[in-house]
Amino acid sequence: MNILIKNVHVITGDANDIYHGINNIAIKDDIIYYIGKNIPENFIPNRVIKGNEFIAMPGLVNAHTHAMMVLMRNSADDLTLENWLFQNILPKEKNITKDIVKKGTMLGIAEMIKSGTTCFLDMYYEMDVVAKAVIESGMRANLSYGLMTCNQWQKGHEYAKAFCKDFHNEYNLANNGKLKTSIEAHSVYLCDEAMLRANADLAKELNSSIHIHLHETKFEVDESIKKTGLTPIKQCLKAGVLDVPVIAAHTIWVDDEDLIILKENNVTSVHTPSSNLKLASGIARVPDMLDSGINVAIGTDGAASNNMVDMFNEMRLTSLIHKGITLDPTVINAATTIQMATYNGAKALGFENLGLLKEGKKADLILVDTSCLNNIPLNNPASAIVYSSQGNNVDTVICNGDILMENREFLTIDEEKTIYEAKKASTLL
Amino acid sequence: MNILIKNVHVITGDANDIYHGINNIAIKDDIIYYIGKNIPENFIPNRVIKGNEFIAMPGLVNAHTHAMMVLMRNSADDLTLENWLFQNILPKEKNITKDIVKKGTMLGIAEMIKSGTTCFLDMYYEMDVVAKAVIESGMRANLSYGLMTCNQWQKGHEYAKAFCKDFHNEYNLANNGKLKTSIEAHSVYLCDEAMLRANADLAKELNSSIHIHLHETKFEVDESIKKTGLTPIKQCLKAGVLDVPVIAAHTIWVDDEDLIILKENNVTSVHTPSSNLKLASGIARVPDMLDSGINVAIGTDGAASNNMVDMFNEMRLTSLIHKGITLDPTVINAATTIQMATYNGAKALGFENLGLLKEGKKADLILVDTSCLNNIPLNNPASAIVYSSQGNNVDTVICNGDILMENREFLTIDEEKTIYEAKKASTLL
Repeated sequence: MNILIKNVHVITGDANDIYHGINNIAIKDDIIYYIGKNIPENFIPNRVIKGNEFIAMPGLVNAHTHAMMVLMRNSADDLTLENWLFQNILPKEKNITKDIVKKGTMLGIAEMIKSGTTCFLDMYYEMDVVAKAVIESGMRANLSYGLMTCNQWQKGHEYAKAFCKDFHNEYNLANNGKLKTSIEAHSVYLCDEAMLRANADLAKELNSSIHIHLHETKFEVDESIKKTGLTPIKQCLKAGVLDVPVIAAHTIWVDDEDLIILKENNVTSVHTPSSNLKLASGIARVPDMLDSGINVAIGTDGAASNNMVDMFNEMRLTSLIHKGITLDPTVINAATTIQMATYNGAKALGFENLGLLKEGKKADLILVDTSCLNNIPLNNPASAIVYSSQGNNVDTVICNGDILMENREFLTIDEEKTIYEAKKASTLL
Repeated sequence: MNILIKNVHVITGDANDIYHGINNIAIKDDIIYYIGKNIPENFIPNRVIKGNEFIAMPGLVNAHTHAMMVLMRNSADDLTLENWLFQNILPKEKNITKDIVKKGTMLGIAEMIKSGTTCFLDMYYEMDVVAKAVIESGMRANLSYGLMTCNQWQKGHEYAKAFCKDFHNEYNLANNGKLKTSIEAHSVYLCDEAMLRANADLAKELNSSIHIHLHETKFEVDESIKKTGLTPIKQCLKAGVLDVPVIAAHTIWVDDEDLIILKENNVTSVHTPSSNLKLASGIARVPDMLDSGINVAIGTDGAASNNMVDMFNEMRLTSLIHKGITLDPTVINAATTIQMATYNGAKALGFENLGLLKEGKKADLILVDTSCLNNIPLNNPASAIVYSSQGNNVDTVICNGDILMENREFLTIDEEKTIYEAKKASTLL
């Protein structure tokens, strides 16, 4: 399908070149074919969208979440981590079924699309039904399954490995390339060195990246040092995990040596500010990571600790909190945050040609309403995206050239049915 | 007018008794007449609202803002305080007129109502037109004017004093008691001891409270100590400012002695987390203030440093940030934050019988939609308000028994005209 968006503010996703003024955007099938003042000759649009009231920007990339956990939203707040996890989350997770995971994931996907996310990295159980939900929705995603989370571990290492390979073979690059798979190595506190190494070997064999929780709490780091003499990052280095591309959620409580290891091994750090604050995990050294050239993306984490999956919350918080902590109001400006939430995430998730609103790139983009009270007057489009917009201001979502939402109405998801089924599923947890 | 809201979740605004289940709410004129399972005998409603999908809670009280500054939204971000203030904000403020202030304030009021605020404390120039905007909108407000900000100071102290008194006499308790006035003593860096004392004397004479910026930056505190040997709080104590009720915005960089002074003098601290983070002012010791029994309210500050006037942002940030800083996830739970954003603010602003959704209290309340994706499933209404709701989820706003917004449509404000005029006014700054 060819789509023409006329006279729209263009935010690129490239921090060094963030705003391209008011232009027309021509989308040809799954590619951004043209951005400029004219309309390309011979370009016959099937759809024309008036862009006058909108900012166009790359679709947001939620680089670390557990989409299904929206079912546990607002169920366990203001609690210590132990109480949250052992008294609340884990008992609920004992009750999950494929059907519950599918319905919860659909609710999470719907909330993400409605708040402008077009691509996400997911880690949970029952990834095959997660994949089915993603395919139904038309979104782009990278789905992580590991030797321990495929629910086949009790049948032995080789069986679990074959299961993960089957999942990879079925879904990696599936659905017109909108799906990718990666290997989950949950964390150093759940994976011993042998398990870390086994997941790393599997990732190498499949040419996959690894998705891991790393340095989330001070306790995790202290225990790791106590047990092994190494920080979790150094444990990963030793076990060969960092030989493949790694997407590491959280990365709080890192020392300077850890930062050098992250940088030298091209590890992506995923900043999840709402969840890190809410669980009192701490605050990541994001300005230091950016200064040292580490690729930093942004994620919502699961809604059990957020309690939304709205990347606009995370963008605003990313720009605000590090100014407050460093007492420097110039750190992590709006353009930098936008790049973190788009291009840096796309790069981390292994999608090429994604995360930039530029000619030749994949047509994942969103239109953000500037006619709402909170965006008037529109003095600066990049500031408006980060500091005064909310997920609710997203009007239109396009993924791979297909419209997933327009005028806040879903085209691929039955919202009423999704809500009904998710509510019912949540009562079974 | 009598309004009946049927079968609605009731959040009270009292942290120790936050959730009252699903009930009917009967509003008689400006008072909450009944909350319970029944419908009072002889109560004949003019309007019946189905509450099934809603959480009812007290209208939010924005306890420190400069409403007009929405016109400067997104115009000066990621800058040092000096650059922000001297190169951007002050030059714009040289161009303000009564007309610009009125139109900017109307935009700010519209944004506040649309995000659930029913009452605010304002500090700016040209307060008479601010008062007119508030009256037109139907909102409740406390408006601050001081000897320096009434624009009559150049004519001498007595002239300015008479001007402030006239303003007080005209607007205090006006508009069915929905308006109150207070005395602005801007800050210790703009007011010397004589000016602080003159404002304090005027407040005493008028039986008013004082609204002040206090301990916003470390620089302010350091300079105060360098010049006078006293922290700004101690300067206020010495100048008699604390002899009247004081509403102090920010109160960052306080030592333990300052905290004792705030407590002993019943000073309200207004926490403005977005603005404090964005300007890199620092992070207030809110858990310590609450522990020592200080009344802490919440405000948005102006949109030039926020960049919204949406109290849902500030509630979420208040609950999140102090967990992250203290590394204790149990501090400032959802119920506490809700009380800060409602009852504590109402008390600070001098409105009696306000800020609680209980029988006999003033009928300022809002209905928050729970049928939106980000509030499904509704596991805990108080958590939903603080952690997963956004200003855009406010469906209905009632102030003093009058409906100001229903189904997100204004009843007292012409939204299109407000936006049109505000956009035009912003180009004149």
